[in-house]
Amino acid sequence: MSDLNEESSKEHVEDSLKQVVDLIARQKLVESLVHSQDMPRHELVEALVHKQNLAELQKKLDELHPADVAYVLEALPLDDRLLVWDLVKAERDGDILIEVSDAVRESLIATMDNRELVAAAASLDTDEIADLAPDLPKDVVQELMKSLDEQKRAQVESSLSYDEDSVGALMDYDFVTIRADVTIETALRYLRILGELPPHTDKLFVVDKDKRLTGVLPLKRLLVHDPEAHIAAIMVDDPVVFHPSDSASDAAQAFERYDLVTAPILDPQNRLVGRLTVDVVLDYIRAEAQEDMLSMAGLREEEDLFATVWRAAKNRWLWLAVNLCTALIASRVVGAFEGSIEKLAALAALMPIVAGMGGNSGNQTSTLVVRGLALGLINKENARRLLGKELGISLLNGAVWGSVMGIVAYLLYQNVALGGVMAAAMLLNLLVAALAGYFAPTIIARLGRDPAFGSAVLTTFITDSMGFFIFLGLATVVLL
Amino acid sequence: MSDLNEESSKEHVEDSLKQVVDLIARQKLVESLVHSQDMPRHELVEALVHKQNLAELQKKLDELHPADVAYVLEALPLDDRLLVWDLVKAERDGDILIEVSDAVRESLIATMDNRELVAAAASLDTDEIADLAPDLPKDVVQELMKSLDEQKRAQVESSLSYDEDSVGALMDYDFVTIRADVTIETALRYLRILGELPPHTDKLFVVDKDKRLTGVLPLKRLLVHDPEAHIAAIMVDDPVVFHPSDSASDAAQAFERYDLVTAPILDPQNRLVGRLTVDVVLDYIRAEAQEDMLSMAGLREEEDLFATVWRAAKNRWLWLAVNLCTALIASRVVGAFEGSIEKLAALAALMPIVAGMGGNSGNQTSTLVVRGLALGLINKENARRLLGKELGISLLNGAVWGSVMGIVAYLLYQNVALGGVMAAAMLLNLLVAALAGYFAPTIIARLGRDPAFGSAVLTTFITDSMGFFIFLGLATVVLL
Repeated sequence: MSDLNEESSKEHVEDSLKQVVDLIARQKLVESLVHSQDMPRHELVEALVHKQNLAELQKKLDELHPADVAYVLEALPLDDRLLVWDLVKAERDGDILIEVSDAVRESLIATMDNRELVAAAASLDTDEIADLAPDLPKDVVQELMKSLDEQKRAQVESSLSYDEDSVGALMDYDFVTIRADVTIETALRYLRILGELPPHTDKLFVVDKDKRLTGVLPLKRLLVHDPEAHIAAIMVDDPVVFHPSDSASDAAQAFERYDLVTAPILDPQNRLVGRLTVDVVLDYIRAEAQEDMLSMAGLREEEDLFATVWRAAKNRWLWLAVNLCTALIASRVVGAFEGSIEKLAALAALMPIVAGMGGNSGNQTSTLVVRGLALGLINKENARRLLGKELGISLLNGAVWGSVMGIVAYLLYQNVALGGVMAAAMLLNLLVAALAGYFAPTIIARLGRDPAFGSAVLTTFITDSMGFFIFLGLATVVLL
Repeated sequence: MSDLNEESSKEHVEDSLKQVVDLIARQKLVESLVHSQDMPRHELVEALVHKQNLAELQKKLDELHPADVAYVLEALPLDDRLLVWDLVKAERDGDILIEVSDAVRESLIATMDNRELVAAAASLDTDEIADLAPDLPKDVVQELMKSLDEQKRAQVESSLSYDEDSVGALMDYDFVTIRADVTIETALRYLRILGELPPHTDKLFVVDKDKRLTGVLPLKRLLVHDPEAHIAAIMVDDPVVFHPSDSASDAAQAFERYDLVTAPILDPQNRLVGRLTVDVVLDYIRAEAQEDMLSMAGLREEEDLFATVWRAAKNRWLWLAVNLCTALIASRVVGAFEGSIEKLAALAALMPIVAGMGGNSGNQTSTLVVRGLALGLINKENARRLLGKELGISLLNGAVWGSVMGIVAYLLYQNVALGGVMAAAMLLNLLVAALAGYFAPTIIARLGRDPAFGSAVLTTFITDSMGFFIFLGLATVVLL
């Protein structure tokens, strides 16, 4: 991205997608005509149409911003995607690979040979190379590293050494530094000599001779102050800073809270090592949110909408296998009461309601807790109150919906005791649901795992099994 | 926010929360001592300690950024929250109200009288007033509008007139305009006279005499070009622009795609009416993601972690009521097969597995489709392929997990036919799940609703009912 004009014109990108799809369809039509017709005299004409079509498609692609080409690629099924990818100019490959989702990136990289990959990656900034490297074949990475100069190689290696959820993995090395003891006049002259500033530059980083950060100078201040003033007098001397090992999600929250555009990244000796920018933070926040959503549904990794059946199925197996196990255990709980069910088959019809309502209520609680944990809003002091509130809600909802279902069960089966058992089981299972919804994410988080991933399955497992147990157990004791 | 220094120092905000909680705890201890002790000679000492404590707490709060005070308020239970809120300086009330979540904002506003509310709101920028207005009592809004000058009132009214998911609702009016025919030198002099630029200013908006936008001038370009150059020569003349009626989520995607910091907003005649900034976009993206997550769990609106039980329960009723209805219908499906279950109680134990696996698999599909729809990746041309892929995955998973469960059922009950029915029902219900997971969000989206809200409940309803029907129906035909 960084080499491109940030301000490029906005196409209506969905219109572009439609045009590309139309051109591909036309292209396919021409190809099928060429193949189906035996009359050689038409060949020349069709070859011309064929060529003209491809040229038009290529022109369209050249006009698009790399991010828009990425969007088009993601929306196309695999064969159309590869047709478009072939038409993209080689020098844009790198910029586009950085923009597409991981799943789609893999499908594109699979079609490129090592030479193409090295060329594409070499055109990128070091932080972007580090982004791409984990998806490249090992020998390509080796070759690529050899092709870089020493400083760049060191930067890529350093970026690669940080955990993917740390600030270090998100930082870039594109910043402008300045000394505190010069005047604005001098600074302006220096900038004119530079001739260009890195994308997103909203401030200069003020450093001393050991590269230690002493402050930051927003460009705004540079513009509105007297040219005679010294940088030291107008810089901000307590800026928000980060360290490479800081958590990326904390940094993202700080960007949101303090409305930052860029921030310096320092080593433990306060020496400037990199920069974090809001565009990377924005991508990170979006990716995090999507990951949470996908992982709550048990999709282990981002999935290409048009992945092969085999790949996609594998992505979903872990979750289905875990669910099969938990469902099997819940099923054995029911199995233990088969004698009761034989005597009163109504129990089989009513038991899914008890389990299902518990699952829904429990997942409402666990979603709130997952969100509270993610935002850092839950701590030792307020945890008990939160649990108390959730239990209170369950008591209230259990009384209300338990009564409703008790009456419905009575009306359906004309059995007062069955209605009573239904009502009591609903109430009890909603209390279980509050406990499960509170403790499942809390315990998963305490184990250092992502609560968004496991909370739903654990909560549902508990509310299903306990729902069956409570309802069938009560029924066996009271009714039979 | 805009009046505050964007670059204020970063406190470790969670440490601040701990300190505040400690101070509140100490405060409560002192109060309980004061109340429990009858010895009057101690009163003076305790009153002193009491006062000293509050002063320390207040000092701590004064040091915090408004966004950090907001964070502290959100993490505190209601009574502690109001204690802290009382200590916050009145002139900061407005800035903090803008930062807290809607649910917490309501709890704070409830404790303020009209005079305080008008004063707090009047200190804000017009776009912030428009944010706050829907949460204020009607008479406060009227009084507030009267207190504004004509231009500001018009701005607030215009902001309020836009749909909350449109660009118009997110725009601010803080921008600096310049003419194309002046030199950089003149522009720099003009900026020095202004003395201050609005937060996030990364570019000036270049307009003609009718306020029509002719281009934008990134501050970077102003800094690196020759002072003699004319603005017209160095400005970007095809910038990304928005209109107030554009969808906010499309604008957010454009900010992400084109890495924007600010963008001009134009009326249909291309006249400049406002500005969109990345900090607002960031907040919007985060809020959207959270809303999706909460609404997937059936939480209708953002819920204060420490809301009263009554309020919170009401927030969850719609969802539980809908689920009760769907569960009841599924239960009637089972009820229709009570005769079969009486003869073979094993059916009752196995049926939740068929329904549950269908639900999980269906929700994997619907999550992918919801995400694809949100990103605009699904269209007429590729929809059939996507459905085909999902059906393929279901066929594969149905064969694999159906066989596994068929064997398990056989081993449990030593009944080959039962194992066969189990395997066939699993396979069929996974195919139903793929159809439900694909069509539920597609249809909800076509009806103009948010698929994140209704897809899960609709998918689960179909997989539950059909799972029971297929399994019990097959069993009745084959086994009995």
